[in-house]
Amino acid sequence: MDFFRVKTTEEMTDIIDQHVESIALTGTVPTDKASGRVLAMDVTATEDVPGFSRSTVDGYAVQAQDTHGASETMPAFLHYAGAVEMGKTPNQALTADQAVYVPTGAMLPEGADAVVMIEDIEKNDDLVQVLKPVRHHENVIVRGEDTEKGALVLEKGTVLRPQESGALAALGISRIEAVKRPVIGYLSSGDEIVPYSRETLSEGEIRDVNGVTIPALIQEWGCEVRIAPIAKDDRADFQEKAEALFEDCDMVVMSGGSSVGVKDYTTDVITSLGDKEPGLLVHGVSVKPGKPTILSVSSKKPILGLPGHPASAMVIFHMFGKQIIDRLMGKKRVDRHTTVARVSQNIPSSPGRTDYIRVTLHTGTPYPDAEPVLGKSGLISTLIKSDGLLEIPERKEGVLKGDLVKVHYFI
Amino acid sequence: MDFFRVKTTEEMTDIIDQHVESIALTGTVPTDKASGRVLAMDVTATEDVPGFSRSTVDGYAVQAQDTHGASETMPAFLHYAGAVEMGKTPNQALTADQAVYVPTGAMLPEGADAVVMIEDIEKNDDLVQVLKPVRHHENVIVRGEDTEKGALVLEKGTVLRPQESGALAALGISRIEAVKRPVIGYLSSGDEIVPYSRETLSEGEIRDVNGVTIPALIQEWGCEVRIAPIAKDDRADFQEKAEALFEDCDMVVMSGGSSVGVKDYTTDVITSLGDKEPGLLVHGVSVKPGKPTILSVSSKKPILGLPGHPASAMVIFHMFGKQIIDRLMGKKRVDRHTTVARVSQNIPSSPGRTDYIRVTLHTGTPYPDAEPVLGKSGLISTLIKSDGLLEIPERKEGVLKGDLVKVHYFI
Repeated sequence: MDFFRVKTTEEMTDIIDQHVESIALTGTVPTDKASGRVLAMDVTATEDVPGFSRSTVDGYAVQAQDTHGASETMPAFLHYAGAVEMGKTPNQALTADQAVYVPTGAMLPEGADAVVMIEDIEKNDDLVQVLKPVRHHENVIVRGEDTEKGALVLEKGTVLRPQESGALAALGISRIEAVKRPVIGYLSSGDEIVPYSRETLSEGEIRDVNGVTIPALIQEWGCEVRIAPIAKDDRADFQEKAEALFEDCDMVVMSGGSSVGVKDYTTDVITSLGDKEPGLLVHGVSVKPGKPTILSVSSKKPILGLPGHPASAMVIFHMFGKQIIDRLMGKKRVDRHTTVARVSQNIPSSPGRTDYIRVTLHTGTPYPDAEPVLGKSGLISTLIKSDGLLEIPERKEGVLKGDLVKVHYFI
Repeated sequence: MDFFRVKTTEEMTDIIDQHVESIALTGTVPTDKASGRVLAMDVTATEDVPGFSRSTVDGYAVQAQDTHGASETMPAFLHYAGAVEMGKTPNQALTADQAVYVPTGAMLPEGADAVVMIEDIEKNDDLVQVLKPVRHHENVIVRGEDTEKGALVLEKGTVLRPQESGALAALGISRIEAVKRPVIGYLSSGDEIVPYSRETLSEGEIRDVNGVTIPALIQEWGCEVRIAPIAKDDRADFQEKAEALFEDCDMVVMSGGSSVGVKDYTTDVITSLGDKEPGLLVHGVSVKPGKPTILSVSSKKPILGLPGHPASAMVIFHMFGKQIIDRLMGKKRVDRHTTVARVSQNIPSSPGRTDYIRVTLHTGTPYPDAEPVLGKSGLISTLIKSDGLLEIPERKEGVLKGDLVKVHYFI
């Protein structure tokens, strides 16, 4: 099966981009509950924001040209022509040589084009002395300066952060069409795996750590999760549980089943699901840890087989599961926080393989220092000590102490 | 009031650390729902993890010394002594010159101290030929290697990420004591401010953008939010709404009320709440944008007054609100993702003031490029284009094109 030679991480990434599509279902979501959701529509401004020219300071609305050349020794003299109230329309237009008091945020009177800050004014009865000149539009946000009516404000596929929700609120858009939250199914398997809540273990048993960490990541990334009961190392049991999840979910994630006999039927079960188009795409990635990763797409649903070791499973799920989920959610790009760091010691690596090294980040200027966390890939304790994953690209034979490297943050 | 000279960002940070304490209430949370919560207890391992020595590969358990010197041309010859089943205790101990098949994750027989990978074995009936030597403990995770019984696994104040929840699961800890989610009250004020869902505005009105963005951040950071109805520019109305929130919440955040008359009573109202110990701490921070920031702590509850401009309010809430909330949650350190970036153009700044410049990050090697987003601080559109905030420390007169700078990611 030459097709199933191990893939590079770049090939894996390309395969995900090519074969994983956004789920088609969308729903209406209130703007104030939309943070983290992905827009399923373009948003165009139906009005100018702000809808009127506003002062950004407490001061006096003027015509800027009346203040040119003004100074403390040679003030410009203007006539006081009243005050604007917050949230109200000014009573009259401003003409040359007039000044009208405006508080921060209030509407500028017609005819005014700038505001002199109150600390640059001296006022005696109806005489307003301007001690400092202002430019056209100084201390003013003009109508439509934030968003002009008719402009494309947010594109389909935009992830709504608090500020995007704020921009929708500014336009009075109180409901939006968002991509439905994907439902991700999770299945652990293995005769030795028992529910994590089991207090006393028999010899040879271990608790289901992946059944906690992977669902936690799924939820952290904005999806719903369905967790199946742990499958035994038995093809019929595994098939039944995998099929039920596949039926109910937009994606299925599995872990475990890495011993030889089990490996064989795991792939068989994965490839038996759905319409088998395009079917099995990846069977092994040249990455450490996490080489025995499987990816299939069938009936538009990705099926991701993770390694059984908890730390390997988390690394793979961070690096590729996130990308798959972001695609399912219809995000325009993968959302990932990284930093540049300086590595604290030499780390060897094999060329032809991407290494993800767990690191602790220590504050430094200008770069943080990235110190590798030592320990075998199966150890969950190594992940507790880690702030992120240092990436050694496959073309490199390792990194040297002092090299600048890219670190992917954990959440 | 010399005490209320404008504070530097460093002073602001120190004041928060000194005066904001973790809320005392804790609650019991299931481990699989604990992601994002803060531990209110130290967690000590009550057993070894793993509870038995396990193989990390499919292969043959051996005594490592029996394989020394083995090679493809000079294999070590061992006697096949059966196979271990997943999740079961091996039937018998392994003695010198024996090899027992173990799948990945299975328990090592007593007497074995290493595993030879299956690809380094040739087996004929009961003869096992080892083609490659293994070291003591190679391909094995020994009992207690992840966590030893009695060890401090997680300290009080640790934020539970998925991996920390996984470590708890590995120990069979299904419920933990966590700091209660803080309840944060939010209040917008201003005669010109109307609910964001108002479809048609009268002249001079604007929609409540901060009432969407700030509560979204509060929830993003793991707190509950209570939103009060918008207060008018009227002292009695403002006092009543602030008092009600203060009563119900662990912290109160306000925005607006920045015009001169209103400013006066905003501070009066803030300082009237609770036991007034220590009371008003900050009245102005030397930061751009966001100078008119107010911080008070009373009855152990922080009260934060944000500037009214939506973008300024978000910047201040990101930089200081997050720190206050992290302290309330009992986090050992402020959780913040930053990166080093190379600035794409000169940006001037005034010494004695910290500038937070909105930037777009562009992929680059080894550093991303940080390009400033231009526009007045009141414009929410500037935040939509931004990936984060570039910090120009107060001792600097700006940054030059090509300088390495620190960028704080938005979520």
